[in-house]
Amino acid sequence: MGNEGVKDYCGIIGIYDENNLDTANLAYFGLMALQHRGQESAGIAINNAGFITHYADAGLVQDVFDQRILSILKGDMCLGHVKYSSGSERRNNSPQPLISEYRKGQIAVALNGSITNAPMLKEKLSWEGAVFDDGSDCEVIAVMISRKFQRDIVEAVRETLAELEGAFSLGIMVDNKLIAARDKNGIRPLSIGRFTNGRGYAFASENVAFDIIGAEFLYELERGQMAVIDYKGLRTEWHSEPEKGSLCAFEFVYFARPDSNINGISVYESRELAGRRLAAEFPAEADCVIGVPDSGIPGAIGFAAESGIPYSLGLIKNRYIGRSFIEPTTRLRELAVKLKLNPITNIVQGKRIVLVDDSIVRGTTTLRIIELLKISGAREVHMRVLSPQIKELCRFGGIDISDRADLISNRYTTEEIRRNIGADSLGFISLDGLLGTLRGGSGGYCSECLEAP
Amino acid sequence: MGNEGVKDYCGIIGIYDENNLDTANLAYFGLMALQHRGQESAGIAINNAGFITHYADAGLVQDVFDQRILSILKGDMCLGHVKYSSGSERRNNSPQPLISEYRKGQIAVALNGSITNAPMLKEKLSWEGAVFDDGSDCEVIAVMISRKFQRDIVEAVRETLAELEGAFSLGIMVDNKLIAARDKNGIRPLSIGRFTNGRGYAFASENVAFDIIGAEFLYELERGQMAVIDYKGLRTEWHSEPEKGSLCAFEFVYFARPDSNINGISVYESRELAGRRLAAEFPAEADCVIGVPDSGIPGAIGFAAESGIPYSLGLIKNRYIGRSFIEPTTRLRELAVKLKLNPITNIVQGKRIVLVDDSIVRGTTTLRIIELLKISGAREVHMRVLSPQIKELCRFGGIDISDRADLISNRYTTEEIRRNIGADSLGFISLDGLLGTLRGGSGGYCSECLEAP
Amino acid sequence: MGNEGVKDYCGIIGIYDENNLDTANLAYFGLMALQHRGQESAGIAINNAGFITHYADAGLVQDVFDQRILSILKGDMCLGHVKYSSGSERRNNSPQPLISEYRKGQIAVALNGSITNAPMLKEKLSWEGAVFDDGSDCEVIAVMISRKFQRDIVEAVRETLAELEGAFSLGIMVDNKLIAARDKNGIRPLSIGRFTNGRGYAFASENVAFDIIGAEFLYELERGQMAVIDYKGLRTEWHSEPEKGSLCAFEFVYFARPDSNINGISVYESRELAGRRLAAEFPAEADCVIGVPDSGIPGAIGFAAESGIPYSLGLIKNRYIGRSFIEPTTRLRELAVKLKLNPITNIVQGKRIVLVDDSIVRGTTTLRIIELLKISGAREVHMRVLSPQIKELCRFGGIDISDRADLISNRYTTEEIRRNIGADSLGFISLDGLLGTLRGGSGGYCSECLEAP
Amino acid sequence: MGNEGVKDYCGIIGIYDENNLDTANLAYFGLMALQHRGQESAGIAINNAGFITHYADAGLVQDVFDQRILSILKGDMCLGHVKYSSGSERRNNSPQPLISEYRKGQIAVALNGSITNAPMLKEKLSWEGAVFDDGSDCEVIAVMISRKFQRDIVEAVRETLAELEGAFSLGIMVDNKLIAARDKNGIRPLSIGRFTNGRGYAFASENVAFDIIGAEFLYELERGQMAVIDYKGLRTEWHSEPEKGSLCAFEFVYFARPDSNINGISVYESRELAGRRLAAEFPAEADCVIGVPDSGIPGAIGFAAESGIPYSLGLIKNRYIGRSFIEPTTRLRELAVKLKLNPITNIVQGKRIVLVDDSIVRGTTTLRIIELLKISGAREVHMRVLSPQIKELCRFGGIDISDRADLISNRYTTEEIRRNIGADSLGFISLDGLLGTLRGGSGGYCSECLEAP
Repeated sequence: MGNEGVKDYCGIIGIYDENNLDTANLAYFGLMALQHRGQESAGIAINNAGFITHYADAGLVQDVFDQRILSILKGDMCLGHVKYSSGSERRNNSPQPLISEYRKGQIAVALNGSITNAPMLKEKLSWEGAVFDDGSDCEVIAVMISRKFQRDIVEAVRETLAELEGAFSLGIMVDNKLIAARDKNGIRPLSIGRFTNGRGYAFASENVAFDIIGAEFLYELERGQMAVIDYKGLRTEWHSEPEKGSLCAFEFVYFARPDSNINGISVYESRELAGRRLAAEFPAEADCVIGVPDSGIPGAIGFAAESGIPYSLGLIKNRYIGRSFIEPTTRLRELAVKLKLNPITNIVQGKRIVLVDDSIVRGTTTLRIIELLKISGAREVHMRVLSPQIKELCRFGGIDISDRADLISNRYTTEEIRRNIGADSLGFISLDGLLGTLRGGSGGYCSECLEAP
Repeated sequence: MGNEGVKDYCGIIGIYDENNLDTANLAYFGLMALQHRGQESAGIAINNAGFITHYADAGLVQDVFDQRILSILKGDMCLGHVKYSSGSERRNNSPQPLISEYRKGQIAVALNGSITNAPMLKEKLSWEGAVFDDGSDCEVIAVMISRKFQRDIVEAVRETLAELEGAFSLGIMVDNKLIAARDKNGIRPLSIGRFTNGRGYAFASENVAFDIIGAEFLYELERGQMAVIDYKGLRTEWHSEPEKGSLCAFEFVYFARPDSNINGISVYESRELAGRRLAAEFPAEADCVIGVPDSGIPGAIGFAAESGIPYSLGLIKNRYIGRSFIEPTTRLRELAVKLKLNPITNIVQGKRIVLVDDSIVRGTTTLRIIELLKISGAREVHMRVLSPQIKELCRFGGIDISDRADLISNRYTTEEIRRNIGADSLGFISLDGLLGTLRGGSGGYCSECLEAP
Repeated sequence: MGNEGVKDYCGIIGIYDENNLDTANLAYFGLMALQHRGQESAGIAINNAGFITHYADAGLVQDVFDQRILSILKGDMCLGHVKYSSGSERRNNSPQPLISEYRKGQIAVALNGSITNAPMLKEKLSWEGAVFDDGSDCEVIAVMISRKFQRDIVEAVRETLAELEGAFSLGIMVDNKLIAARDKNGIRPLSIGRFTNGRGYAFASENVAFDIIGAEFLYELERGQMAVIDYKGLRTEWHSEPEKGSLCAFEFVYFARPDSNINGISVYESRELAGRRLAAEFPAEADCVIGVPDSGIPGAIGFAAESGIPYSLGLIKNRYIGRSFIEPTTRLRELAVKLKLNPITNIVQGKRIVLVDDSIVRGTTTLRIIELLKISGAREVHMRVLSPQIKELCRFGGIDISDRADLISNRYTTEEIRRNIGADSLGFISLDGLLGTLRGGSGGYCSECLEAP
Repeated sequence: MGNEGVKDYCGIIGIYDENNLDTANLAYFGLMALQHRGQESAGIAINNAGFITHYADAGLVQDVFDQRILSILKGDMCLGHVKYSSGSERRNNSPQPLISEYRKGQIAVALNGSITNAPMLKEKLSWEGAVFDDGSDCEVIAVMISRKFQRDIVEAVRETLAELEGAFSLGIMVDNKLIAARDKNGIRPLSIGRFTNGRGYAFASENVAFDIIGAEFLYELERGQMAVIDYKGLRTEWHSEPEKGSLCAFEFVYFARPDSNINGISVYESRELAGRRLAAEFPAEADCVIGVPDSGIPGAIGFAAESGIPYSLGLIKNRYIGRSFIEPTTRLRELAVKLKLNPITNIVQGKRIVLVDDSIVRGTTTLRIIELLKISGAREVHMRVLSPQIKELCRFGGIDISDRADLISNRYTTEEIRRNIGADSLGFISLDGLLGTLRGGSGGYCSECLEAP
């Protein structure tokens, strides 16, 4: 639930707004719109007449940047990044964008994803004499581009992209150019936008970032495609032959914001539809439907609509508590869930409740929420989950868990899980059910982690 | 909408947890649970063996206090306050609790409300030689107590309370005692709680604060009543003959948190019920019902349930943008609403929408939200408002507006307002309708501002 | 005394260290060495491949800049400034360097001094259609350069300099060039240095800045001269016919650091020599000689050496108190001088003291120090002043006083001043005496403010 | 030199100013006057009607405390501390005052010194069941007092003091009483003062703290004595039979401020006198005498007076650089000494210089200063040291060195040291010479570390 145990796959934004030296301000607001994709670090690299300056640090966008910093970052082209780095993958821990030198100047790289063949590429480069600093995937990419560069930097980028395996949506800023790219399976999303006054282009992990900076959505980059933005305009090329579409289904389940569209599909609608399917697959006798805020809400609305059971707010999230840095004393620690989530007793008391959440990974948070509802007087809690059971680790680093045994669905049967979390009944949407909510897009979906071995 | 033009009436909390020197930590978390009642300043006064130390400043609870400050505030009895002070009423601008000296020691006073006869009382005290510092209502109260004090401080407090007119829920800490009081009409709420481990008591503007500090709700203080908490326990007395119950109806409309109970009524349920009534009073032909986050949501759910029109999330609030201190550049300013509220295009496009909000005061925000929906493709927007038209200023300072002409309902007919805000139809719940959602409590409600002259 | 009533004339530094992108770090340390010339604001502009970014704010160098800011300011050429702006001259209040746009890019300007014909030049430019932002002298200079620019920016700078009247040492950064200039009378100092490893050049208000950044002193710029530093090296030209040398004598009295050399003369030696002259001109029967820290110390040593009266430390300056932002309570305010300066009772008690200070402007601080010594038991205090009486305001803004009546020497006779400050005798060095300490330099000195009308 | 390798023995201050609730402000300024005795941490404990609140943290006084913190610390009795803790003695690392509980309330303890039998006392207490938190000397003292307490807390303090061995000046605040004490040998200084308006008393490590808070010096506490300050006034008692006076001679050499009096002797005068003795013991043929700022200056003045060689400032200390937190880049690191100390070339060039410093411990700093002078053109540097050779570690923790081999005088002959540091001649004052400067006080001095084994 929430993002418990799940790794947000970072957010990237690239902006080129000709002659507007305040693009760092735009990136700042754009990154705020993407903040849900990563709260661990934030960074902006800005291009001034070919010279790149940048600032990045650990923390939320609004904590990393202030008026002082933004006042210095002047330029009409920039690249921004927010990151969530998993505990298990320490190789990508530096704040991004990463800035690197090449023969003719600087390269800035920002990555949403995971290059699965990075260790191999790195070893090869090391044999060839390359020296690495933080050894991150971004640095491997930068070093490859640098080495491939002869005369045409775009060509060097293209050749590099062609060698990368894994899930990646990439932003690169080099030689007064902004380059965006998606892997050949299109696992992570990336959209292209245009400033409505026509002076430039932008790209972002989700289109919600465009609304805030005054750009309009143009299209999503195709898998295997790269886009080059510069003073001559926008053009796209293929860096790799597109393969089977494998957009990560969890983008819809909880990575993305509900007001985003991905693969041509409204994230909100897909979640509501998933709730409806869930109601059909696992009906319940109950008095009301409640969603776990925020990502369980749309599904709960759908479940209610389909089942005819009234929808209700039953859990209130405290908007202020989140950023507190004061540690509650021992005695308060047991109240930690309550600090963030408070049940509405009148709604809950004596009721049979359908509780809808986006997923169950470890099960610990779900257990605590159900406990909270029962203490508040809920007669029954029927747990309904908007994603199928997660049985495997993600090859692309999508689940922030390194040990399969931590996945509750990997170790226990559904009935065991039900007892474990204290629910009166438990239903996970079927894989077909979930995929059914994602129809109409241009390619297929990756659901490897959801399939039984 | 939101709190546009409306004055939150502050939040107060009092804690006595015998021998627990960390009650300031409890107050910190309790005030966070009450943060919605005032974001302008925050303060905590703590009692150490009869000596009161305190810290208060402008800002959110988590910005005013940090670990350093809390580590100094040691004592087992404390009084906390969060404030929203209106622009029009400058006489209550200092952060509270106010600390004052009396013959035998110190008095701390924290006020949620407005003493209507304060100017008169102050003048009288001045004639008698009293000198004022900030001249706030709190100071008037403290000076009165000090002057009335002979031997029994509780008696002096009682006599003082008996002379106060207006709307007030008060917290006083003096002589190792914590005193809570409500005015004789019970205009502002106040609840009493008990630490579940039995070592002490607490009071708070709303019972949601109890959950977080490990206390349980006991009862709401009666109008005209005062409670005294000290090492001997909890006792209540009458400071004034209770008069007609006049709890402010707007506590339910938007002051209070949905997970609070006031006057024995669930705030959430009253809002949902108001939505239902509104649907009955002003039905609409529409495709979906949308609430303005956060306080319009429960009413939208109720409207949908009653009307059979599907409920949907259509506006997403950016949780991260709120506290940004970076001013958007001129070009971004027009996007200011979008920074906070983003419509889900797929839900909105081509749809006839019922938009539910808690109130319309000036009308400017409503206008901008409807515009936003129309730009996103909404075919029709049927505005439904969960409170009746606000035609008069509040005698107790409940509306942060000093000029009646700023109240849109005071100047225009409903039809004129509808045209003004760009809605396709417009309905305000009737006063009877609203009051009907508040039945079952122990007294009546104040609705002066809602009644036509 | 100290800088009471006197305006430090700012400090400037320019650095070009080819391929060293960390020159902002060098400027940071260089500005620290010049911090005594201005504590009001600090700023650094940096040149990246022709693009200038900058940061400047009110405060000490170490408060304005931190690691975050310096990490962003990357480039191998930069211009820095520390400022003391007088209360009376509000037209030069923005932190410098000032950044301005011209046809081909940006200009950064940093000024130590005052352009006396700036109001006239500004009016002329306004007539020609120029629009000003802060209207500072720096902006007038930037606008003039911009307007004169045809093809050769250095030529435009030279033509501009030729039209400026007043006292100025200037730093300009434009088109990958660093330009330094001194006015035709050479009123303010400016030195040129070279990085000892030979990769670049620097200029600074005082040569003490070179020691800290690893540069060696080359020469002082001549009056009427300008120096151009770029990738081709260092060259000097004449922007104006040099006129009568009029270096401000107060640079030696207290503006400059004692370890600086100005006009080929050691500041320390000139101060010690002034003390010797003073002893010859105004001998005293006394037991010991004490200097007011810090700028009165060298003169006191000289006075002692000449007179044979033993030199002693008698006043200790608290090095820690200076930057405290805590206001002492009323009761402590009277101790304010003591907070900074504490007499050594054993040295002072029962003694006849010669007290040496750099100057007397208003007389208030001197009065308080003499009082302090008398309270500590001094039998007699013979005041000796290392500069002649200041009878006139400075045409170039050198004295931070707008009303002649505030100059104690303008209103009172020496005997009246003596009584006023409570001294047992009082002697100011003669103008000839002072000028005698400054012999051997390349030109004359300005002493207008010291001459009786 | 400076404090290189030497452990400042902390500074303490105690204040009782009846009915003045702002004594924390007084302590703040008093601690600033004692800041030279410890820059590592600072703390203030304040007594409110018997309840002690406190704040302490690592850092300078002005960084640890701000207006917010001081505004909370209200009370008319307080205890303050600044600390320098040696690297070798980790057992006393927590910021002080230490606050501890005893049966009837709280005890605050602040220590300047080292309890040599603390490990033994601690072990004994542990056997008796005592549990320690940080195990510091302060905690051992607090636990002892707590255990000895029957009815009279002052009696318990006295019994505790009687059992302590080592060097200590102590401040204790308990039961509305302020207690000061000195060990039976009087190794560390402690003075008593009285508020000049007669409402209270204070004590401090050095009397310079009194000047700043508006108190006057009364007397120094005798060895073996304790003073009790409370609402009844000031009284002194003996906690131990006074033994041989052994005031640490290094208090005069560099611990104390020159404007302090210790043991009835002016610190400044003793340093100047030491300079004179040194000139007699080790005359030099030279052109000028220079002192290493700040503590070498008085001795240099004395040396000059005695020898007739002119005294001069030759090294200027940069007052601004000290608190910089920006790390110089590798290239600048070699300039580190220059950042703090700059020679005046004109004074130094071609001269034979007598360089006077307070001590030589490791020799590394001395080496660098002599190098600096030689680079600036000094012909000869004759090193003269105001303290005898340090041959042994201090039993009381006075030298922040754990390995005797780090004491240059322990390993090398004088001639070897001279060559090592690059001096042309080298002379250390004799022990008799130093002790001769300290005559007239009430007891003897400890000079164990200076005597050859």
